[in-house]
Amino acid sequence: MATRDWKQRAQEKREAILAAIPTEWRISNPPSVEDQLDVTGPYIHQFLSPQEIEITETTADGIVANTSTGAWKAEDVARAFCHRAALAHQLLHCLHEIFFDAAIADARALDAYFAEHKKPVGPLHGLPVSLKDQFHVKGVETTMGYVGWIGTFEGKTGTGKEKVFESELVKLLRKAGAVLYVKTSVPHTLMMGETTNNIIGYTLNPKNRRLTSGGSSGGEGALLGIKGSPLGFGTDIGGSIRIPSAFNGLYGIRPSTGRLPYQGMANSMDGQNSILSVVGPLSTSAAGLRLAVESLLSFSPWLVDPLVIEKPFSTPTYTSARTNSHHPLTFAVMETDGIVNPVAPIRRGVRAVVSALEKQGHKVIPWQPPSHAELQHLALEVWTMDGGTDVQAAFALSGETTSPQVSYLLSLSGDDGEKRASHIAGVNVALREYRKRYLDYWVGTREVTGTGRPVDAVICPLAPTPSARREMFKYVGYSVWVNALDLTSVVLPVAPGVDRERKEDAEEGYVPLSQLDKEVHDSYDPDFFHGAHCSVQLVGRRLQEETMLGILEYVSEIMKS
Amino acid sequence: MATRDWKQRAQEKREAILAAIPTEWRISNPPSVEDQLDVTGPYIHQFLSPQEIEITETTADGIVANTSTGAWKAEDVARAFCHRAALAHQLLHCLHEIFFDAAIADARALDAYFAEHKKPVGPLHGLPVSLKDQFHVKGVETTMGYVGWIGTFEGKTGTGKEKVFESELVKLLRKAGAVLYVKTSVPHTLMMGETTNNIIGYTLNPKNRRLTSGGSSGGEGALLGIKGSPLGFGTDIGGSIRIPSAFNGLYGIRPSTGRLPYQGMANSMDGQNSILSVVGPLSTSAAGLRLAVESLLSFSPWLVDPLVIEKPFSTPTYTSARTNSHHPLTFAVMETDGIVNPVAPIRRGVRAVVSALEKQGHKVIPWQPPSHAELQHLALEVWTMDGGTDVQAAFALSGETTSPQVSYLLSLSGDDGEKRASHIAGVNVALREYRKRYLDYWVGTREVTGTGRPVDAVICPLAPTPSARREMFKYVGYSVWVNALDLTSVVLPVAPGVDRERKEDAEEGYVPLSQLDKEVHDSYDPDFFHGAHCSVQLVGRRLQEETMLGILEYVSEIMKS
Repeated sequence: MATRDWKQRAQEKREAILAAIPTEWRISNPPSVEDQLDVTGPYIHQFLSPQEIEITETTADGIVANTSTGAWKAEDVARAFCHRAALAHQLLHCLHEIFFDAAIADARALDAYFAEHKKPVGPLHGLPVSLKDQFHVKGVETTMGYVGWIGTFEGKTGTGKEKVFESELVKLLRKAGAVLYVKTSVPHTLMMGETTNNIIGYTLNPKNRRLTSGGSSGGEGALLGIKGSPLGFGTDIGGSIRIPSAFNGLYGIRPSTGRLPYQGMANSMDGQNSILSVVGPLSTSAAGLRLAVESLLSFSPWLVDPLVIEKPFSTPTYTSARTNSHHPLTFAVMETDGIVNPVAPIRRGVRAVVSALEKQGHKVIPWQPPSHAELQHLALEVWTMDGGTDVQAAFALSGETTSPQVSYLLSLSGDDGEKRASHIAGVNVALREYRKRYLDYWVGTREVTGTGRPVDAVICPLAPTPSARREMFKYVGYSVWVNALDLTSVVLPVAPGVDRERKEDAEEGYVPLSQLDKEVHDSYDPDFFHGAHCSVQLVGRRLQEETMLGILEYVSEIMKS
Repeated sequence: MATRDWKQRAQEKREAILAAIPTEWRISNPPSVEDQLDVTGPYIHQFLSPQEIEITETTADGIVANTSTGAWKAEDVARAFCHRAALAHQLLHCLHEIFFDAAIADARALDAYFAEHKKPVGPLHGLPVSLKDQFHVKGVETTMGYVGWIGTFEGKTGTGKEKVFESELVKLLRKAGAVLYVKTSVPHTLMMGETTNNIIGYTLNPKNRRLTSGGSSGGEGALLGIKGSPLGFGTDIGGSIRIPSAFNGLYGIRPSTGRLPYQGMANSMDGQNSILSVVGPLSTSAAGLRLAVESLLSFSPWLVDPLVIEKPFSTPTYTSARTNSHHPLTFAVMETDGIVNPVAPIRRGVRAVVSALEKQGHKVIPWQPPSHAELQHLALEVWTMDGGTDVQAAFALSGETTSPQVSYLLSLSGDDGEKRASHIAGVNVALREYRKRYLDYWVGTREVTGTGRPVDAVICPLAPTPSARREMFKYVGYSVWVNALDLTSVVLPVAPGVDRERKEDAEEGYVPLSQLDKEVHDSYDPDFFHGAHCSVQLVGRRLQEETMLGILEYVSEIMKS
């Protein structure tokens, strides 16, 4: 396919996305990035009615409380979020698919159901839910940012699945009463912490449009960050739920493998079985995450996805953690992994959490685990096993060019090409043995916590910087260790954003640990990053979703007070 | 290493195993196979005291009831099983490691504990437990049947782990109060349904020594079959727990991946991540399996093995299934997979179960799942991914010759050599999609069971023949589908053994489906197979250990009455 062709097809798709926005919701003269860095709050309010603002600035749990009792109509809620999402896309380039008409029709049906039966359809009755573009939803396509996937089913034509097949999680959301209305942007390949592709361009951070919204669930991050969605689903193989959560002041959870259904989703390097991508929610509230996980598990997803573990949501476990019934808890803190130090505002965020917990009488001890460098090396081995074969095939479908971030990723693969079975098996064994050492370290903390339990959660950065400049998000070590160990991790905003006036947010006289550390620190500057969110990660052991959701709500609460 | 060397080393090891048997327990003139086909019951009784017979013919649950109350001394129990195991090895070649002295010392310590504290150490207080040679146990080595592993740790020297490292499950058994005394024979490579290697030779079936005891946990099968152990642990990647269980009239369970701890065990093709080998118990009673699984889970094995799922033993689920509280259940029956038909006594066994269940008012419907042939093809793809690299390296350590069964296995790998990452990923995707189709079929039976639940368990053969002639166990399709789908499967003896006088056990005028089916049927003959056990498999969905253990006890009970 000639260059002109892929550019034209990308442009047609880009225009088709914009064309799906009703005329009355178009922004006639969108400001340039430099003219309007922050498009949240007052800026976007100018386009919205007071009712739309009230609805869209209510959290997922609050919305469901209103729609499930008939206080709010699902249709009003759907229209408000469709409108705000439409504005978001024009300002941030965060959507791949728009299906407002279907959403409003679905919402009307929910309202009719409620009018007739006086009860909600399910636990998410009338809640708008946004979806990363890996989900298949009937009526729209899935490009995953690849031009060659336009008009196909995962790059193939004539499968009979085009625009009719739905991912299992989508079906469960419908059962729960959710209203689906948009699919959000992803970086082509999915393997980066920024979001860019040849269809929608670059997804911007709503708080500071010079910065990235993160990736790979970067469209989710931007959309929720501007409150164009109360709850969305992303995926995470190296941080792809948590990076956009952290960069946009959101709550996010990376559940362990096998807890939520991935069946029927598009993916990169599908079939790589060593470190699996997982699906999970991002939300504007901690309670929203719990609502999402609990609702999905109430439908026994192990009956629709052979990889989901039969492990129902344990309300007692969640409640115990939420109400802090085991007070005091023991947290561990990892201020730095010793490879790349976090910059000043991130350190400030971590310290704020530690201090709030200590004030509540909890114990916080240092985290001194096995080498994270070794683990990162293993994770890189896993992600480069196929030598780029899969993603290169996807690019080759259209002949489109790859972004510099992809070239960087592919360069990490080295020139070895595809790895062989024995090599892969060796990596799997090394990874398992590493996991065993890490587990032993974690469980061993039982000896020092004084509670009889190992450390309840580890407090640490999610990324070394609060968001990042374009093409400058190079260090994913703070998120990747969680994937490589298959742990349960949550992210929460913990402190005011970066302030160019706050002395504490400047890095002065910093002595870098290495060239990589220097690059990361050189890229940060409180003036350029002004407004960026400060978030922190809390990491629990494997399959501790209920406990970590409870702890997340508890910590969010004490951080607010 | 020259041929003479490996033969000599194998012989020295073989002699060292025999030398570990006290002189007074030696059989001076063991009979030839043809002179004494059946060495169980009256034959072995001649070497044992009445007390030893009583102890060794008590099931695991019965033994624990006695040792936990002080009615029996752990030392007496240990001595009785050591003696019977010593006899077993001389008649069947079923042991790789013998450590009676350590066992008796451990038993004495347990007795001393009981005398002092008036309570058992743990739920397996004083129970002798045998272990397949993949387990590492301090004081003895692990050869896994490879001459090149003699005097090493998994083929390596100078690791510091030799004779001191213990597998996690071994440590948990010690905590539970089990007495470890022997490690049992395996086929070199582990990848076959018979047990043979250059160290101990060929492990014989105690009911009919012309036949195989099965594999790969064939030493366990033979030892438990002659009641030289009440409970043992094997592993299963394609039937290796269930085949020896079925061939020796035992109860066995293949749990789903991640339920019991495999950490720290030796293995073949370690790191192959597509279909994992799992560890599980074999026992002379159904209750013994439940005791084993419940005891291990009581120690939270997810704290010592990063691959174990945090899913405590659910007593309510077990009890509900055991007491048949959801009567009636719906079973499905798969009399044949359409690829190789089971021979007459196996068909008789399956019919006996169906008829007993129907008599109790349960429903039995036909099982018409997606193609098992397709699934078997995928499983073969998985097991031949490394083109034999791993096992050939193990053979090369000593230069030993491989058994004909291994040559057969290696021939299945074809000439492709090692598979590449993309190919492996493709197999993983195909396997996952197949699992999804199978799950959909299973869950879909909800529409026809009339109970609101999908089929509770599938009744089917475990193998087409009751045991097999040497080098003639060629069809593992009836066990492999369970591994490829990661289901929970139990095996139980259901009917009298093959009887040369029973007309029903003869195959007359059989029309084979294929050359393979013909070979299997030609190999069977009620005269040659006289005495062989008839067993049946019950298969549940993934991670249904509690339910399947309960159903197993219930079905065993009704089959006895």
